[in-house]
Amino acid sequence: MIRHCLASTSRLNISLKNYGNYNKYPYINQFNRAFTNSCRLERACEITGSQHPSSCGNETIFGKILSGHIPADILYEDNDCIAFRDVDPVAPTHFLVIPRKYISQLSLAVKEDSKLLGHLLYVAKETAKKEGLDKGYRIVINNGVEGGQSVYHLHIHVIGGCQLSWPPT
Amino acid sequence: MIRHCLASTSRLNISLKNYGNYNKYPYINQFNRAFTNSCRLERACEITGSQHPSSCGNETIFGKILSGHIPADILYEDNDCIAFRDVDPVAPTHFLVIPRKYISQLSLAVKEDSKLLGHLLYVAKETAKKEGLDKGYRIVINNGVEGGQSVYHLHIHVIGGCQLSWPPT
Repeated sequence: MIRHCLASTSRLNISLKNYGNYNKYPYINQFNRAFTNSCRLERACEITGSQHPSSCGNETIFGKILSGHIPADILYEDNDCIAFRDVDPVAPTHFLVIPRKYISQLSLAVKEDSKLLGHLLYVAKETAKKEGLDKGYRIVINNGVEGGQSVYHLHIHVIGGCQLSWPPT
Repeated sequence: MIRHCLASTSRLNISLKNYGNYNKYPYINQFNRAFTNSCRLERACEITGSQHPSSCGNETIFGKILSGHIPADILYEDNDCIAFRDVDPVAPTHFLVIPRKYISQLSLAVKEDSKLLGHLLYVAKETAKKEGLDKGYRIVINNGVEGGQSVYHLHIHVIGGCQLSWPPT
């Protein structure tokens, strides 16, 4: 069930490999339940797309990553953001940059968030450099239902490691 | 020839419709020649992808838009950036946001550009709102050859007006 959930809704690199046998470590089942519930919440957000997505609050998977309740393969972190690998990569390199501040989606950012938005883009390009994406990459931000946003915590996709095509629709 | 050039290289919305008969307005031919040469330069940049793209300088089509030598369907402008429709839209709504400052590509932005990068994203989302993209949209920045960057003046694509799919590769 969790694997289905991972495939269908999550874009996080949950490092389950470190946990080994689920039966041996009962707390993993707690983690699974929490994660599955989180996925259900995400799905509910998507299914009820006509509702305002931000009503989902910071109970997103990304919120749980930030609070340490869900592990991730973190590439970078500072006081304002973290970068971590996408659990469902669409290219050889695929990671996300998200703000610690809860902003559900780009369209709901306020003027005072501009500095933070710039920092996110700067961290994205610096992390891409560290990941060896010297030949290029693509930055993608999905906003809202028609933009294909799957998790309502603002996140920047950084995708590379192969030749990308056009259009990105 | 110019139409081929438009189709193959440009992402600008050149408002030729306002110019009517080319023969009646000789300056249009001058515009065409300048634009075609600009396109050739862009193509040269793409063909010689192994060279450092920034060697193309600000002789890009976007540089000419900013200097007023090439018209565009401008949606927004301020002291730091402009937004204008893409000449080769990939969705019902497709516009670009570019800085007035010449930054060839995101990977070459410096720390001091962070504020500007944030402003570009903020203008992108504000312009999307004005364009009525209430149901969502996608932000895309192509960086370098593998990212599919076609013009070496940093630009943010804003794409919307229909349901976008995944992946954007």
